[in-house]
Amino acid sequence: MTSHRPASDLEKLPVKLADITAAAKVIGSSVTATVCNESRTLSEICGCNLWLKFENLQFTATFKERGALNRLSALSAEERRQGVIAMSAGNHAQGVAYHAKRLGVPATIVMPVGTPMVKVENTRRHGAVVVVTGATLEEAGAYAAELGETHGMTMIHPYDDPLIIAGQGTIALEMLKAVPALDTLVVPIGGGGLISGMAIAARTLKPDIRVVGVEAELYPSMYNAIKHTQLPMRGDTLAEGIAVKWPGKLTTEIIRHVVDEILLVSEPEIERAVAELINIEKTVVEGAGAAGLAAVQSRPELFAGRNVGLVLSGGNIDTRLIASVLTRELAREGRLKQLSLDIVDRPGQLAAVASLLAEAGANIIEVSHQRTFSDLPAKATVLQLVIETRDRAHLEEVLARLSAAGLAARCD
Amino acid sequence: MTSHRPASDLEKLPVKLADITAAAKVIGSSVTATVCNESRTLSEICGCNLWLKFENLQFTATFKERGALNRLSALSAEERRQGVIAMSAGNHAQGVAYHAKRLGVPATIVMPVGTPMVKVENTRRHGAVVVVTGATLEEAGAYAAELGETHGMTMIHPYDDPLIIAGQGTIALEMLKAVPALDTLVVPIGGGGLISGMAIAARTLKPDIRVVGVEAELYPSMYNAIKHTQLPMRGDTLAEGIAVKWPGKLTTEIIRHVVDEILLVSEPEIERAVAELINIEKTVVEGAGAAGLAAVQSRPELFAGRNVGLVLSGGNIDTRLIASVLTRELAREGRLKQLSLDIVDRPGQLAAVASLLAEAGANIIEVSHQRTFSDLPAKATVLQLVIETRDRAHLEEVLARLSAAGLAARCD
Repeated sequence: MTSHRPASDLEKLPVKLADITAAAKVIGSSVTATVCNESRTLSEICGCNLWLKFENLQFTATFKERGALNRLSALSAEERRQGVIAMSAGNHAQGVAYHAKRLGVPATIVMPVGTPMVKVENTRRHGAVVVVTGATLEEAGAYAAELGETHGMTMIHPYDDPLIIAGQGTIALEMLKAVPALDTLVVPIGGGGLISGMAIAARTLKPDIRVVGVEAELYPSMYNAIKHTQLPMRGDTLAEGIAVKWPGKLTTEIIRHVVDEILLVSEPEIERAVAELINIEKTVVEGAGAAGLAAVQSRPELFAGRNVGLVLSGGNIDTRLIASVLTRELAREGRLKQLSLDIVDRPGQLAAVASLLAEAGANIIEVSHQRTFSDLPAKATVLQLVIETRDRAHLEEVLARLSAAGLAARCD
Repeated sequence: MTSHRPASDLEKLPVKLADITAAAKVIGSSVTATVCNESRTLSEICGCNLWLKFENLQFTATFKERGALNRLSALSAEERRQGVIAMSAGNHAQGVAYHAKRLGVPATIVMPVGTPMVKVENTRRHGAVVVVTGATLEEAGAYAAELGETHGMTMIHPYDDPLIIAGQGTIALEMLKAVPALDTLVVPIGGGGLISGMAIAARTLKPDIRVVGVEAELYPSMYNAIKHTQLPMRGDTLAEGIAVKWPGKLTTEIIRHVVDEILLVSEPEIERAVAELINIEKTVVEGAGAAGLAAVQSRPELFAGRNVGLVLSGGNIDTRLIASVLTRELAREGRLKQLSLDIVDRPGQLAAVASLLAEAGANIIEVSHQRTFSDLPAKATVLQLVIETRDRAHLEEVLARLSAAGLAARCD
């Protein structure tokens, strides 16, 4: 993976700029040409010029519609009649289901057990038959292949298909048209379809552009394939949209030739990016959609002063996860803090602590007493509090006040 | 308040279309011409054709920039030098602070105690001197007036000023230009500046358009003024941006002449609208910004089949409030539920309940045992659970399964 690769290399790849401009014509106005706006505040925070491509504002809240529609549009009349099948943890499912219904093509979607409820429900609402089965994507995929074969349905692969790759590539056309000055694209990698299409389009139009891929640290599958490493893949990532164990063959080949770097981002980095997009940009993205911002924030030296385009690839995140990410971020910033205080178990003690906190401007969110599991004498008790402060400096001030009043608090 | 009022009436009002088109020129590209997009999903839910004007995507996440910039631009050189002062619970503060800094005008902002932290912090970040004082808006206002007089600063009123009203009116120009077919505008009312400007612009350009104002049920001040009622004003509304006790004199006069109806929305309706805009539109609005959607949903018969334009007036909502609104909405939909079960206090009981819930596809979020405050025998205990289900039908199914296994659960 290097920059300044000769343009002739692009000729050998299985998808070309012409396929991507053709895809743009096919999908036309049936897919939203989402806005690509500069974020002044995030640019300031990150030390570069950041533009955001709001693919989370597609009708199904995911870029996957582009590839799905391009692929569906290529079906023969007979294939349309027989219907299509797809396996997906969510976003590809919604893209296929929505456009299949629009085109009058019956669609069956196989989703693995554990797929976020919002994605299952939305896929059903788009009119597809949804089968939830298989403990992993691989099991679900095997089931889908079998079911499809039995019923003569065409399998719509989520990424390893030239028509899918060409469809996703249309995003780069729109971004470079909106902001010709972009010199860097930062794109999440799951199976690799999105970055493959975008990199081919961008590198053909602007050979010196840098294309950087981002994976969740918990699922570095493309990183392993490209760098010949054996980093482990495991766990529950907030970015389940890019938690893919087996990258595509086509996409691996393309990425090897036209992507400059792959960065890995940690879960706290992804969570922080989701929270910042909500708080600063007032926009809701799923974990995978925030991976690009997470990468820029975790490696600012790679992007300093550059004109960076980020794809906010999707917005399908469970309601309860949003609430949990926001609350955890407050805790991480020190604005929500759990404290323990040893107090004497008699009337007036809580009142004294509560008054002190009120004077200090801290808000009490939760209170509990712990009498059984403490090392204190039986007449003492541990008071556990969750408090809200303005920021870390305010928290320190609150702790100092408590301490000055003889109430030493431990932060848990 | 009636429709089909003769256009001659508009001639007598203190702000005219010409003032609003002049304001549009003054603010130019220094304020974002936000998008006005149709929401297909919300249109389907509401039974009308809904367009959303995303004023929550202004740089300071509020429409207030428009009026503030129009007013600041009219200051004399001497007034600019002396600086400006404003009193505001938040959004007007940010609008004034940001544009005053841009124009090199010193700004002091007085905010009442209890203003959401996000608004205090953002106002400081925009470079204003912020004074947090006064238990109410009125007390803060009195302090600001005094401070301004002492230091020769010009008071920038949040709504009762023709230049402010004209600035806010530019939103209607943009909406009617983007969607000429709009036949209804639904606009939140706090002091009344936004709806006054918008109604004058819209009624002059399109005399038959319906303009509907929305207030929080807890603060029906303009409703009282116009309808000569005495509904009480009290409590903590999620829509603190429109919790104004004393509407403006100018704005009351204008609203009496050009607004067709004022609707009141309850707190659950506002909360639901905030949650829906996050879940469906992937956009973050504050309570006041969601009031319009709340009104359309609570009185669908008034809007059936119409082409309705809603102003999402702002997006400044505290992180913790978003989390809390989303979680409460899940509870309201039956997707989060607190259950109590009487069980025998011995090993294996929780395991049995947990297994049953797992088989039924319900997710356990919280578990606690209540031994002290129950009517049960000492060897029994109350198991309290918070569970997550797909929807209300799934919840009923889960409860039926528990019941069939002899574990009758009470919903708290």
